[in-house]
Amino acid sequence: MKYAGHVGELLDSAGAEIGDVIEIRRGKEVRSGILMPHHDFSAPSVITLKLTTGYNIGVLVDQETEVKLVLKREAKAQKKQALPRDPAKKDIAVISTGGTIASYVDYRTGAVHPAISAEELVFSVPELLDLANVRAKVLYSILSENMKVSHWQSLARAVAEELNSGAVGVIIPHGTDTMGFTSAALAFMLRNLTGPVVCVGAQRSSDRPSSDAIMNLLSATRLSIDSDLGEVVVLMHGDTSDTHTLVHRGTKVRKMHSSRRDAFKSINIDPIARIEGPKMTFLTEYTRRSKGSVQLKDRIDGRASMLHFYPGFEAEHFDLIATKVRGIVIAGTGLGHVSEEIVGSIRRAVKDGVHIYITTQCLHGAVNLNVYSTGRDMITAGAVTLGDMLPETAYVKLMWAMGQAEAPEEVRKIMLTNIAGEFAERRLV
Amino acid sequence: MKYAGHVGELLDSAGAEIGDVIEIRRGKEVRSGILMPHHDFSAPSVITLKLTTGYNIGVLVDQETEVKLVLKREAKAQKKQALPRDPAKKDIAVISTGGTIASYVDYRTGAVHPAISAEELVFSVPELLDLANVRAKVLYSILSENMKVSHWQSLARAVAEELNSGAVGVIIPHGTDTMGFTSAALAFMLRNLTGPVVCVGAQRSSDRPSSDAIMNLLSATRLSIDSDLGEVVVLMHGDTSDTHTLVHRGTKVRKMHSSRRDAFKSINIDPIARIEGPKMTFLTEYTRRSKGSVQLKDRIDGRASMLHFYPGFEAEHFDLIATKVRGIVIAGTGLGHVSEEIVGSIRRAVKDGVHIYITTQCLHGAVNLNVYSTGRDMITAGAVTLGDMLPETAYVKLMWAMGQAEAPEEVRKIMLTNIAGEFAERRLV
Repeated sequence: MKYAGHVGELLDSAGAEIGDVIEIRRGKEVRSGILMPHHDFSAPSVITLKLTTGYNIGVLVDQETEVKLVLKREAKAQKKQALPRDPAKKDIAVISTGGTIASYVDYRTGAVHPAISAEELVFSVPELLDLANVRAKVLYSILSENMKVSHWQSLARAVAEELNSGAVGVIIPHGTDTMGFTSAALAFMLRNLTGPVVCVGAQRSSDRPSSDAIMNLLSATRLSIDSDLGEVVVLMHGDTSDTHTLVHRGTKVRKMHSSRRDAFKSINIDPIARIEGPKMTFLTEYTRRSKGSVQLKDRIDGRASMLHFYPGFEAEHFDLIATKVRGIVIAGTGLGHVSEEIVGSIRRAVKDGVHIYITTQCLHGAVNLNVYSTGRDMITAGAVTLGDMLPETAYVKLMWAMGQAEAPEEVRKIMLTNIAGEFAERRLV
Repeated sequence: MKYAGHVGELLDSAGAEIGDVIEIRRGKEVRSGILMPHHDFSAPSVITLKLTTGYNIGVLVDQETEVKLVLKREAKAQKKQALPRDPAKKDIAVISTGGTIASYVDYRTGAVHPAISAEELVFSVPELLDLANVRAKVLYSILSENMKVSHWQSLARAVAEELNSGAVGVIIPHGTDTMGFTSAALAFMLRNLTGPVVCVGAQRSSDRPSSDAIMNLLSATRLSIDSDLGEVVVLMHGDTSDTHTLVHRGTKVRKMHSSRRDAFKSINIDPIARIEGPKMTFLTEYTRRSKGSVQLKDRIDGRASMLHFYPGFEAEHFDLIATKVRGIVIAGTGLGHVSEEIVGSIRRAVKDGVHIYITTQCLHGAVNLNVYSTGRDMITAGAVTLGDMLPETAYVKLMWAMGQAEAPEEVRKIMLTNIAGEFAERRLV
């Protein structure tokens, strides 16, 4: 969005456009940096500057403020260049899918919109190019709430291709809304990983003051080139300030806050690692890089539902859904319970050949249907428990398992086998 | 369940029955207490004793162990007595609904089963009678996953009756699985409270060693007689050991662990109070006791659903449910999002007169549909956001609001009004 009013006039009279380096002077105070677009979150009297540190700041403008053009932008020209390659550095791949991390404010609606290209994203974090050679591509550019099974599959194929052609790690800028679903899907589809596959998001778009995108991308780069990790992970801020990032196992992570930068939490396990600047501390056991090559198991059968039980959940509704799918993951209450009526629905669904798996909506802790009479009735009805697996991970795994095997007992065997750390071996109690 | 094998023979030869006071001697070690039933969680060679402190312990029995009968139980006789009344003490009411806190092991199936009467429960915590006069009743005895709207209503009526006839507080032993739903329902139905309404549960049944029932009941009693609180709350352990309990606002609390004693967490606010022995510390603003009388607003329209959005959620499934209900609460991703397809479903449902309200499955943080294009499309389609309200609380409130008003604009006005602290005024960020 363009700057309006007094601020717009100031910028116009200086001949400054978005992307130019400008200097803002007010008395003795001087600030200089790249002029970023105006956005809805700022007051009309604030100019957003990207500093050389990579961080964005908002500068308040009043009648005494002067603006001076320092340097016309070269960003557009640079964007069209191929990314430079230094044979002394390792190769990493950046496969962008969209989301806040790859977003600008949509100047039409004023809302944030996925728009930035992978190259633009990489160029917005110049330090990244100091660390590694980057192969950047945009696979698609969508808000993650629109992610489908087919997107997971094409992403898995692209990741396997990059790792099997020499990338030491793959960074996936991704919308945070469903990033935990994608990381779980990749973790099941990609076996024998030769390097880290790092889903990385931002809670503030890259053009906003105090975006978390840069630090998360830099940490992901360090993890890719400096670690021996061979897992699919989610990497995000570890706190609300910019002190460190955390690396979460892709099957044990969930977005637990709608807006905080440290929204992602490892559930039922500790994070795999903590990254603070160049310092990387591993906190749990993890799978090492394999010698390769990466195996791709990308068949998924999408005919599954995830249902959260609650008081008043109508058996009729459950029965309706059950006729439409091959499998249902239930997020039950407490140790995994549902009402007597829904136990009846489970019994009917299982008789009709529908897979019924049980997780807990508490999210923390494991299910156990052996403690209470309800649970025993659920087992008799044919429900199968999934320990401390997250409901979301269980839903993704069920679709993947149904894609891998046809026979119900085979699907069940896959569901109960620890494929990608989805069952914690040592739980925090 | 009866004790079997060597342990059973030892108890039989001593003439000891469940409820008797016995002494267990092995060399110089002597333990005495009330003989509790054997349960599945213990090894066959363990006798469970309730000590005079109220805590249960397991005593390992071997060939050298001797058992002596000290006192035949009087519990049965006492149970039939009216509870004693001391005019110097305040009156509280205990209205039992079932759940682990009021459970024994089911001797038939070996599973935990709600069985204990309110009097038995009260007598199992003699300290409670030192603090207050207790009116105890069993309203029903069910596992909370079987709780229905009608149970919430009869409970609200019973609570209003007790408070309006002189009880200074009401304690509601309740199954933990859906206790947060019940506390929210009571908070909306009961206005102008003259004292605390304390939903209290246990994660270990009262007859188990290290049950959390006793401390939770004692804390609830202290809160009832010693505080000026006039709200519906949930009271449970504040940590995994027995150091303190926490008092959570009934509309802002959720079971966040399947088995830990500190499973309940206040979401988006601090707990109201912390209770450590007789010491009570208030941590947030709260509503004081009113002068009365308590108002009962117990009409609820149960025709609502709560749907969690996830990648792969079929618009067809949404549409099916939408035809069956008057209102839907969606737990969207992140700031409250759903896919483009579900935006279409929302549009169709709203056109057909279905209320659509938006919350976040992140649980922590607030929804905001003004940031991203998806959100703006959802608003245009007719979805209404509910700030930082929990999905579960929103679902309960929607049914209550539909019971209170017929006209859609009236329902909406109720939904957006802070009735019982369901919107946090000051959020933890």
